[in-house]
Amino acid sequence: MSPDDAPDGPARPRHARAQVAVGAAALARSASQTLAEQLAGHYATRIRQRLLLPGARLPSVRESARRHRVSPSTVVAAYDQLLAQGLVEARRQRGFFVREAGAQASRGGAEATHGSADAARHLALTTEHLPTSRPRSPPPVDATALIRGMFSVDAQHPAPGLGTLPPEWLDAGMLQTALRRVMAPAADPQVSTSLSYGEPAGDPRLRHALAQRLADFGVHATPAQIVTANGATHALDIVARGLLAPGDAVLVDEPGWSVEFARLTQLGMRLLPVARGVDGPDLAAMAALARAHRPRLYVTCSVLHNPTGVSLSLANAHQVLRLAEQHDFNIVEDDTYAHLAPAHAPRLAALDGLRRTIYVSGFAKILAPGWRVGFLAAPPELVDHLVDVKLLGTLTTPALLEQAVSVCLEQGWLRRHAERVIARLGAARTRAVKQATAAGCRFVTPPAGLFGWVDTGMDTERLATDMLDDGWLLAPGTVFHPGRQPSTLMRINFGTTQDPRFWRAFEKVRGG
Amino acid sequence: MSPDDAPDGPARPRHARAQVAVGAAALARSASQTLAEQLAGHYATRIRQRLLLPGARLPSVRESARRHRVSPSTVVAAYDQLLAQGLVEARRQRGFFVREAGAQASRGGAEATHGSADAARHLALTTEHLPTSRPRSPPPVDATALIRGMFSVDAQHPAPGLGTLPPEWLDAGMLQTALRRVMAPAADPQVSTSLSYGEPAGDPRLRHALAQRLADFGVHATPAQIVTANGATHALDIVARGLLAPGDAVLVDEPGWSVEFARLTQLGMRLLPVARGVDGPDLAAMAALARAHRPRLYVTCSVLHNPTGVSLSLANAHQVLRLAEQHDFNIVEDDTYAHLAPAHAPRLAALDGLRRTIYVSGFAKILAPGWRVGFLAAPPELVDHLVDVKLLGTLTTPALLEQAVSVCLEQGWLRRHAERVIARLGAARTRAVKQATAAGCRFVTPPAGLFGWVDTGMDTERLATDMLDDGWLLAPGTVFHPGRQPSTLMRINFGTTQDPRFWRAFEKVRGG
Repeated sequence: MSPDDAPDGPARPRHARAQVAVGAAALARSASQTLAEQLAGHYATRIRQRLLLPGARLPSVRESARRHRVSPSTVVAAYDQLLAQGLVEARRQRGFFVREAGAQASRGGAEATHGSADAARHLALTTEHLPTSRPRSPPPVDATALIRGMFSVDAQHPAPGLGTLPPEWLDAGMLQTALRRVMAPAADPQVSTSLSYGEPAGDPRLRHALAQRLADFGVHATPAQIVTANGATHALDIVARGLLAPGDAVLVDEPGWSVEFARLTQLGMRLLPVARGVDGPDLAAMAALARAHRPRLYVTCSVLHNPTGVSLSLANAHQVLRLAEQHDFNIVEDDTYAHLAPAHAPRLAALDGLRRTIYVSGFAKILAPGWRVGFLAAPPELVDHLVDVKLLGTLTTPALLEQAVSVCLEQGWLRRHAERVIARLGAARTRAVKQATAAGCRFVTPPAGLFGWVDTGMDTERLATDMLDDGWLLAPGTVFHPGRQPSTLMRINFGTTQDPRFWRAFEKVRGG
Repeated sequence: MSPDDAPDGPARPRHARAQVAVGAAALARSASQTLAEQLAGHYATRIRQRLLLPGARLPSVRESARRHRVSPSTVVAAYDQLLAQGLVEARRQRGFFVREAGAQASRGGAEATHGSADAARHLALTTEHLPTSRPRSPPPVDATALIRGMFSVDAQHPAPGLGTLPPEWLDAGMLQTALRRVMAPAADPQVSTSLSYGEPAGDPRLRHALAQRLADFGVHATPAQIVTANGATHALDIVARGLLAPGDAVLVDEPGWSVEFARLTQLGMRLLPVARGVDGPDLAAMAALARAHRPRLYVTCSVLHNPTGVSLSLANAHQVLRLAEQHDFNIVEDDTYAHLAPAHAPRLAALDGLRRTIYVSGFAKILAPGWRVGFLAAPPELVDHLVDVKLLGTLTTPALLEQAVSVCLEQGWLRRHAERVIARLGAARTRAVKQATAAGCRFVTPPAGLFGWVDTGMDTERLATDMLDDGWLLAPGTVFHPGRQPSTLMRINFGTTQDPRFWRAFEKVRGG
């Protein structure tokens, strides 16, 4: 057991690199702070990092006392401090709830070095200055909570809500070898030492290797149609900034990837959610929305969709493209999970010949999340403009890392590694499906790829809040909806959901 | 001479990595295209890359014929093709001019694989979809032209308009050693192989080293106040997206850094230019603009200002902060040239104690442009929000490169390297000042740092267009103004302006 999931153990030093605390507070009786202060700090950190969302209920006094091995009066004192700091509110007979961000007058105020007027001014900046034209969506606190949670992998606790493969499934040796090869004396010193900015569209060697790779999926792009980015997320950002203006309507999958919702919302777009079925989006609903709102773009994860794991059928893909033509919108195909999918899974960009579709992918899910290498492939007439958007936002991207990815592609290392990962993931999926089913979960979609989409029979935001306090990061269904509606569904990562302790904790919380 | 600046030489193969052609067209008489087609292609490429700006005049037929060693009738045929492609227009008695981007019906159309209706649709996306609330600024074509030009350093032609040190002034050995150290077996394999996303705010080791480094300037930030980014440009982008909403007014230095103008314009902000004097911004003008427009932000390059080389005086800095307090705006201090400046140069962030000021810097101007490592230091209560903006746009940044920069900082390598560069730049500056003065240029501001700001006595946009055709990239004064007003000023890079051939070419164009 890690220090973070040992509510009954003695206080142990926290892992030095675990920025996001996911475990019960390790309260030290000898510390300079009182136990109540430490416990209040534990919850205050979670609230500020939005791992506890506005509206979330804190554990009951008795439950918190049990978890943190302190007396109920210590918990009451801690909750009183949170009340005094304006972070929570008490509701009669119901308990303590995290206040809305705008109402948290002292949010961040503890660290502020200047007066409260200034703090309020800055708080206003951080909340009121977001675009106001958001017809459907609340502030994107939910998405940032989840993505902040993604960075808890340094703690030794498997995170069933994680969006990546477990680090130990990746091939550290391959990455090191690829980097060393790029840095070898015989290599191009301009690249290995990065003495210049590099090319605006990205390293030519990588763009060439990607053009080859995309052809395996039937996506035919010349290297000149490919623009590299700091990860697929950055590529999606470039497309959104390049093709949209505030107020534009954008079709999105529902459920879908919350970071995309949050980014589009932050950029001032109107989201038009379309229900995502097993075969693809609900075509009738999409047609009706397109007629009513004249969207500019449809952003979709077509293959091994996040969070449901489903992939677009060929027939549905054809109809989506017809709708795009009829209603004159572009499509962004987010193929983040490309390397975990069967090669024959149809891509919109392949059917379309990259006429209306912009294809986006990266290497975080198969190679190296920390290298931040991603790319887009676009219709030729859009490329110059998208390169300009990239330049204005970040100038260029690191050629060193892009060349290292090229080596992995060129040598066939990535392909062989992906085959091993797919086999391992298949076995893990079989085990996790058994465990989840035994624990009372029902799979809403056929299990495939990295994620399972399960019905737990209880509100999963509540479940996630309770289990987070025990050190388990979950991905509740609510964060996959633009409107943050309550949901009994959750996404599980097949690679990180096989720890029997997790399912025991799950059943305990679900039963209690 | 490089292949690109040899108008009189035989056609030679172009340098394989020179994406942006900066030289006279190397026309090959044996090629499958006619000479006229090749020459038309030469100008079409420049127009599409916006190295020739809308409104720019093409060289006269006689002049182009002389430069490219072809007959006048070949030039006439080439210009006719450009006319037919809609890229230029003929004005009676005045010559051929590049058309406005919106009017270039076939921009990019040559590569388009589908019908003209689609091309027009996509063109509309790329031009009309920019925010429309731009009271003062034309589309940012000028800035992207300059930054695209920054990537021409792979050609063997010194570029007086360049914004970075010449690559040969950088220390390739130091960069390699730093990288190898981070990748050594004893180092943290999570970092060196990037098996996880890393921390949202950036690598902790770099943030610690930066906190130490900033203290040298009197800027006191804890590591928790520091957020890393993909270069200083990205840090500026994070701040703009985090603190502003479309329509907000932003004070900027005039002249100033065109990429910042272009980015703010693209994000839909209203620019309020304030004349930048030798001591700092015009305080009376700033006060009047603040009263009239209630700006949210002042973005300034306080030390070794780009393009003038001036630094803020202590007295002016104090008054700027008073205005910021009085009119309740934040300040972004872009300290991109920090490493080339004397340590005692006052920073706004130091005076202010990072209360209203967000400090931004990076390592492209001293260490490795291609590593794309930059950062911001912010008031504590803004940090969480800025980290969220970073996450939504790109998730994290590469820890490998951030740790390599840490090594350079921790070992004192960067400091010693900067001392050497400052000495070398001082000697280059003395020589370049002599050459520029002898060629008839007048220094508008006292020469300092990397850039000289000179009055040439002629319109520098015209000068830049003519000299670009001979292979010399210039930075004409017009691109440092949000309103792109005509200017006889230009920015010269002291590190790349000592080639006597450049000054000969300059005097020839200026005289003719």
